[in-house]
Amino acid sequence: MSEAPHADCPLCAAAGGRMVFDGAKLRLIHAQEADFPGFYRVVWKDHVAELSDLNEADRALCMAAVIAVERVLRTHLQPTKINLAALGNMVPHLHWHVIARFGWDTHFPAPVWAAAQRGADAGQLQDAADRLPAAEAEMVAALKTLN
Amino acid sequence: MSEAPHADCPLCAAAGGRMVFDGAKLRLIHAQEADFPGFYRVVWKDHVAELSDLNEADRALCMAAVIAVERVLRTHLQPTKINLAALGNMVPHLHWHVIARFGWDTHFPAPVWAAAQRGADAGQLQDAADRLPAAEAEMVAALKTLN
Repeated sequence: MSEAPHADCPLCAAAGGRMVFDGAKLRLIHAQEADFPGFYRVVWKDHVAELSDLNEADRALCMAAVIAVERVLRTHLQPTKINLAALGNMVPHLHWHVIARFGWDTHFPAPVWAAAQRGADAGQLQDAADRLPAAEAEMVAALKTLN
Repeated sequence: MSEAPHADCPLCAAAGGRMVFDGAKLRLIHAQEADFPGFYRVVWKDHVAELSDLNEADRALCMAAVIAVERVLRTHLQPTKINLAALGNMVPHLHWHVIARFGWDTHFPAPVWAAAQRGADAGQLQDAADRLPAAEAEMVAALKTLN
């Protein structure tokens, strides 16, 4: 199912973060959430609300992109856990949160949407941020093979 | 990747909710969260932490189950939005939350893990609960075609 851009949808109007990869059917953005350096979003470019709005081939492509980002985050950032979520209650335009979570992060083990449990660790945040350029180069290479 | 059950893992030790479907590789449970009647979990039976720990065929099976549950929830409960999430920070054993969200629910539009925004609507909760038996019969039928 393909739909025209929706005038009042922020993910139709703008990238929604720092663009990492802009493909034919999906894009990858870095979420720029200060407390979560390894927070990316796979955004489906058409305005559809639910994963089940996609046909089987598009759904497979979307999930292959999510898995590609997950794999690179695991390799480069060695997170305690990966969190995947497609919520869209505020912005019902299909996007996947792919988040590297760490035992030291402000919210762990709570979800990033819950209350913080501790302050930010500037040293750990910097170490993770330093790893992003190499990680993103590998994400782009992986996503190019999908699109 | 197949692993033996982990003695200290609650999703290796027990179903983790009311069993709806118990298949060869995955099960579906109703989460029994009082404020969210349409809250289900697709639990991968092997103890693996991340979606990318599964091979391609198993990953496709797992996501096909998630989509099957999502589709039935949309048809039977007509939710405002579906929320999908694989977090596992507390229990790093692969499980997908598949949650029917409603504009009237206690947390909407916030994630179910954030703070409540309003009290529960007993009438709406009962109406949703009344729809679950028919919905679950259809979920089971759909999941049987996958396993």
